[in-house]
Amino acid sequence: MLEISEIFNAAAVLKDVARKTAIIPATKINPEVDVYLKTENLQLTGSFKLRGAYYKISQLTEDEKKRGVIACSAGNHAQGVALGATHNGIKSLICLPAGAPISKIEATKGYGAEVCLVPGVYDDAYAKALELQKEHGYSFVHPFDDPKVIAGQGTIGLEILEQMPEVEAIVVPIGGGGLISGVAFAVKTLRPDVKVYGVQSSGAPSMAESLKESKICHLNDVSTIADGIAVKEPGVNTFEMCNKYVDEVVTVTDDEIAAAILALIEQQKIVAEGAGAVAVAAVMFNKLPVKGKKTVCLVSGGNIDVNTLSRVITRGLAKSGRNYTFIVDLADKPGQLSGVCSVIGNCGGNIISVTHERINTSSAINGCTIRLELETRDLEHIGEIRKSLVDQGYNVLN
Amino acid sequence: MLEISEIFNAAAVLKDVARKTAIIPATKINPEVDVYLKTENLQLTGSFKLRGAYYKISQLTEDEKKRGVIACSAGNHAQGVALGATHNGIKSLICLPAGAPISKIEATKGYGAEVCLVPGVYDDAYAKALELQKEHGYSFVHPFDDPKVIAGQGTIGLEILEQMPEVEAIVVPIGGGGLISGVAFAVKTLRPDVKVYGVQSSGAPSMAESLKESKICHLNDVSTIADGIAVKEPGVNTFEMCNKYVDEVVTVTDDEIAAAILALIEQQKIVAEGAGAVAVAAVMFNKLPVKGKKTVCLVSGGNIDVNTLSRVITRGLAKSGRNYTFIVDLADKPGQLSGVCSVIGNCGGNIISVTHERINTSSAINGCTIRLELETRDLEHIGEIRKSLVDQGYNVLN
Repeated sequence: MLEISEIFNAAAVLKDVARKTAIIPATKINPEVDVYLKTENLQLTGSFKLRGAYYKISQLTEDEKKRGVIACSAGNHAQGVALGATHNGIKSLICLPAGAPISKIEATKGYGAEVCLVPGVYDDAYAKALELQKEHGYSFVHPFDDPKVIAGQGTIGLEILEQMPEVEAIVVPIGGGGLISGVAFAVKTLRPDVKVYGVQSSGAPSMAESLKESKICHLNDVSTIADGIAVKEPGVNTFEMCNKYVDEVVTVTDDEIAAAILALIEQQKIVAEGAGAVAVAAVMFNKLPVKGKKTVCLVSGGNIDVNTLSRVITRGLAKSGRNYTFIVDLADKPGQLSGVCSVIGNCGGNIISVTHERINTSSAINGCTIRLELETRDLEHIGEIRKSLVDQGYNVLN
Repeated sequence: MLEISEIFNAAAVLKDVARKTAIIPATKINPEVDVYLKTENLQLTGSFKLRGAYYKISQLTEDEKKRGVIACSAGNHAQGVALGATHNGIKSLICLPAGAPISKIEATKGYGAEVCLVPGVYDDAYAKALELQKEHGYSFVHPFDDPKVIAGQGTIGLEILEQMPEVEAIVVPIGGGGLISGVAFAVKTLRPDVKVYGVQSSGAPSMAESLKESKICHLNDVSTIADGIAVKEPGVNTFEMCNKYVDEVVTVTDDEIAAAILALIEQQKIVAEGAGAVAVAAVMFNKLPVKGKKTVCLVSGGNIDVNTLSRVITRGLAKSGRNYTFIVDLADKPGQLSGVCSVIGNCGGNIISVTHERINTSSAINGCTIRLELETRDLEHIGEIRKSLVDQGYNVLN
């Protein structure tokens, strides 16, 4: 089993490699909680995963190093392993499902790994990795269920205690459980008075279910925007450690995660991926007993696809009334559109797109329907614009 | 004129107020430059402006403090003044143009200021502020052309020298010139070997023009996405100090600024506003002689409106081929749309919206036109999808 000395050893090994990421105050996340963020999204490679992968690789025997390492991941773990191996001067091979985003493949190659694209899904890539491991004698770097990997992640716990000794609670995302196992073990060993809470996505609650059932549960389907923690089954080691060291595990929904991502952008000026925002979401939406407590939320990573980010923002804007699409029925004669536009302009709405349809079964036979996408100030502003349109005799359909 | 002792004094006053923001490596911004970021976007209030406003207010006489302060700003300066005044227990009044974004008005009120909305534009709000100042004896806190404000901003120069003594060049955004005047004065006084460069938006190059002409120039129109540095005329003090202490001033375009904002999000996981990203843009697009040099880009603020951010991301995605709208002419008969969609799906394109138009003067009389908005991997991927559509006999119009 893990010893605290191993985590100190990992910290020494990582000293000149991993950044000691800043802890920043985030008072607006929840005014009733004294919130701080441990910004591992600003870590090299954009995620904490570098720590565990690097430490694991550094502890291989010379013979193992000569043969190289293999891993299976489409995400942050792949980049951590690639960078860890390259820094240690050894070969790394990463198996990825063939449909993985180009950007992730390029980033992994960029850190010096060889990439093996495997047709199919994650499980196929995993099977291929095991096959290649046996064939060539590579060392397999597990993404979470390995004591060395857990020790590397645990260095974050040491840093939090050093950077903020007065901390009362630490909130940590859970996928397979490697990160929280390391952090909770370090914190509970050195400072048993500090609470450690875990957060999963409600679309992939494998650790939460397992702890509830007191045995490892396997989920057949996981679905969440927090793809970095979409894990079907916790590890043997991580399950045991969470059971022993973690105070409570809660879940958050995709909508709560999206709101947390947007809040981090607007209030904190930092970018988190879905998995990186779950701890913040849990505190934002009062899932944990941390009222009045000095609470550090671990923002574990920032590698969010920009298309996804764009959708999260759009959804967040719509939810808070800063974006709205009006659908208006018009008589099909000249001047109608200009009339509608001038009403909207006078109300301070900013039109960003117009779609004009002449065929619509719901409108009069000589009429047409227009969809106007607007930037608006808030929900009240949308109400004002609707009222002005109706007052001017326009038929607003939504 | 300013003394270096005043900047040290400002640092002492700000010690428990302003965050000593982190300097983080940003190697991917330009592989030929050793780039670091001074992250003032992670400063309290989301911008460096707090430093100068707070220091100025702290140095008022007891009598001046009793009467309160006034400022005119729709942005970061307003929030800095509001917080500075509230912390010092004095009253602040901020004049804003009535059309200012609700979010900025709310943020300013949130820091404890009274807000006076003035019909018209910035100049009207400014005139009103001067009128109220005379009437009530408030102290006016100028956004840049005040030695105390400049001294406060100069504390960033001290921090950079302390946090990274081996720095060779510092790149700083310029609006009115308060920030760079303070930073350049501090740096050139203590470390004349370190280069200090300024960057303006090409849509508002008032300091660049003034330095070129060797006299203060007034621009009639300024237009840029970097609204925080859209200043028509530099200050008397700041012009003189830039002339004396700044090595070179360059400009960047709105497209370059947008690309820098997107790069900061994707590569560095931080959010910058337009003004905050100009220093990064200048280094990214090789506007400065810093090849091989240890260069700190000052990211001055992160208060970007989320609607604007969303547009910057969308534009950046389109430019790099991760988003494309195909326009396809179809015979108007059943099954056509499904055929197109299956070709796109087989190529790995992700359809996010479809618009179907039956009336289009360019298409056959019994035909129709569809617009398909897709998420794509890159420009090559768009080419593959186009080729597959054409190979299957579809008439792609763009």
